[in-house]
Amino acid sequence: MSELRRDPIGGRWIIVDTDHPSKPADFEYEPSAFRQGICPFCYGNESMTPPEIDVIRDPYTHPNTAGWQVRVVSNKFPALQIEGDLDRRGIGLYDMSNGVGAHEILIETPYHSKDIPDLLNNEIENFLILYCRRSLDLAKDKRFKYIMVFKNFGAAAGASLEHPHSQIIALPMVPKNVYEEIKGAQNFFNFRERCIFCDMLRQETQEKERVILENNYFLSFCPFVSRFPFEIWIMPKKHSASFSRIAPEEISALASILKDTISKLKNLFPNVSYNYIIHTAPTNGESDVEGYHWHIEFMPKLTRVAGFEWGSGFYLVSTPPELAAQYLRGV
Amino acid sequence: MSELRRDPIGGRWIIVDTDHPSKPADFEYEPSAFRQGICPFCYGNESMTPPEIDVIRDPYTHPNTAGWQVRVVSNKFPALQIEGDLDRRGIGLYDMSNGVGAHEILIETPYHSKDIPDLLNNEIENFLILYCRRSLDLAKDKRFKYIMVFKNFGAAAGASLEHPHSQIIALPMVPKNVYEEIKGAQNFFNFRERCIFCDMLRQETQEKERVILENNYFLSFCPFVSRFPFEIWIMPKKHSASFSRIAPEEISALASILKDTISKLKNLFPNVSYNYIIHTAPTNGESDVEGYHWHIEFMPKLTRVAGFEWGSGFYLVSTPPELAAQYLRGV
Repeated sequence: MSELRRDPIGGRWIIVDTDHPSKPADFEYEPSAFRQGICPFCYGNESMTPPEIDVIRDPYTHPNTAGWQVRVVSNKFPALQIEGDLDRRGIGLYDMSNGVGAHEILIETPYHSKDIPDLLNNEIENFLILYCRRSLDLAKDKRFKYIMVFKNFGAAAGASLEHPHSQIIALPMVPKNVYEEIKGAQNFFNFRERCIFCDMLRQETQEKERVILENNYFLSFCPFVSRFPFEIWIMPKKHSASFSRIAPEEISALASILKDTISKLKNLFPNVSYNYIIHTAPTNGESDVEGYHWHIEFMPKLTRVAGFEWGSGFYLVSTPPELAAQYLRGV
Repeated sequence: MSELRRDPIGGRWIIVDTDHPSKPADFEYEPSAFRQGICPFCYGNESMTPPEIDVIRDPYTHPNTAGWQVRVVSNKFPALQIEGDLDRRGIGLYDMSNGVGAHEILIETPYHSKDIPDLLNNEIENFLILYCRRSLDLAKDKRFKYIMVFKNFGAAAGASLEHPHSQIIALPMVPKNVYEEIKGAQNFFNFRERCIFCDMLRQETQEKERVILENNYFLSFCPFVSRFPFEIWIMPKKHSASFSRIAPEEISALASILKDTISKLKNLFPNVSYNYIIHTAPTNGESDVEGYHWHIEFMPKLTRVAGFEWGSGFYLVSTPPELAAQYLRGV
């Protein structure tokens, strides 16, 4: 028998196969690979990228040369351009605008072949600090309404370069998915005077069956309404709408739970590709986001999205999240 | 410079790369392949599938044996089960239900290696007639609110079997994507007293630059707000909310434009995988769908969806639809 589950925030339904659930060995995924060759993100090739916007580097080393730990540069092929003002106009039925925004690349480590599980905790903390610093800096630009930090790892996840890196995009409007998530959370807040994510943390901690890991500041779990098999959310226990307001002790706890959670996943699925996205509040003030709670959504690329998902917005999930969490706890 | 475009129905934004647009040769896609071997959808293997629900077959041939042209069977691994009533319930914060619905497979042709461009027009008409017949039959079941017809072709598009087939899913609720599309169209209708899709047809026919093909009853074009490079919509010129009310002369015109459009795409991108979905009104009466207009959305699998798209609902489109239509017209 299959089971339908409804996302309490956005109203999306998923179909969970509880009858013939997929085991880890059932997934045929395209493994990520690290080939050697000329990589613009490796030491010595700093001139192949635009100049550094922000960096953490060894003392006495020079900008745009080796000696850095984390390096942020403009995307050489940006989706949006930093210059100009937003110019919205109509063409008959349609609306359009010029593409104003920012598109930065954060090179997480000098090591070409080290993904998050292979890094030291303080190396992960370093790039989380730069996620934060870039978000705060871009938020000062009044043209930008939303800053999105995300990572594509492996070709199957859409990464065009292998060297581990994240992306930071500043957008001139709040994107539809974010807007709907915030609106859904705010509706719940207006009705119950409680944060739906805090309620979720309480229920997950109590029921335990979907929890993977927990520390003083964070919980990692497979969400009840997963859109993908082995989807994972990492959520701060402290209610806060904005990732960029994270406290130093939380950075260190986040580095640790991120590393341990991804390690577990990669033990189960060696060389799996994945995406993660930091879900956070828009930059334009804190009004109407009391009910919002930042978190990270993590999606391993084990399956392909097909016509049914594209057409309906329903998702077919072949491994129930309870079972996925059990497999992840076990490794 | 890139360009932002806003979907006038759902409010989704896309980012179009107008500065360095991708040419057809720039896409590295995973080609679809037809391997031989035991295929449950080939002649002689009819016992490997559940029994026929509907069929078009040669006179004097027996059910569930060779001699058919189009064959509809239950999915052996259905996402939803046909038995039982919907039983919605809550678990703490979450909503769930049992998975009531129907999940059928329509085998389009007895030929293992013939995709739509390789079929005769009347062979395509035959499976379109069965799309329609199954939709009308499933709509009689009062438990079902929505019937979705779609096709996954090639592994990159999520097809697990190569033999050309479509799927028909009956759902106990109107899916979120469909609901939003209908609501968006209805808002426009309430405001303007016109169908937004009819307006779109008028504008596309007038501007011509996004049109691929046209016949008496249909237009195929690259939509102004494409989510994917070389996305194609096929739209009936006659305003009608439901695909299943299609007239016989329209079936024949649809077979012809479907074949010619996919042929053009496959000339440009040999062995490309693709999904298409018939967007149609819910089955529960015609109230509040005056502003809706059925159509087919066709998505070739040339790129991968990455973290930015998942997180934001923005889509990055590397070939402007105007240019895509020009390439498609040229072959």
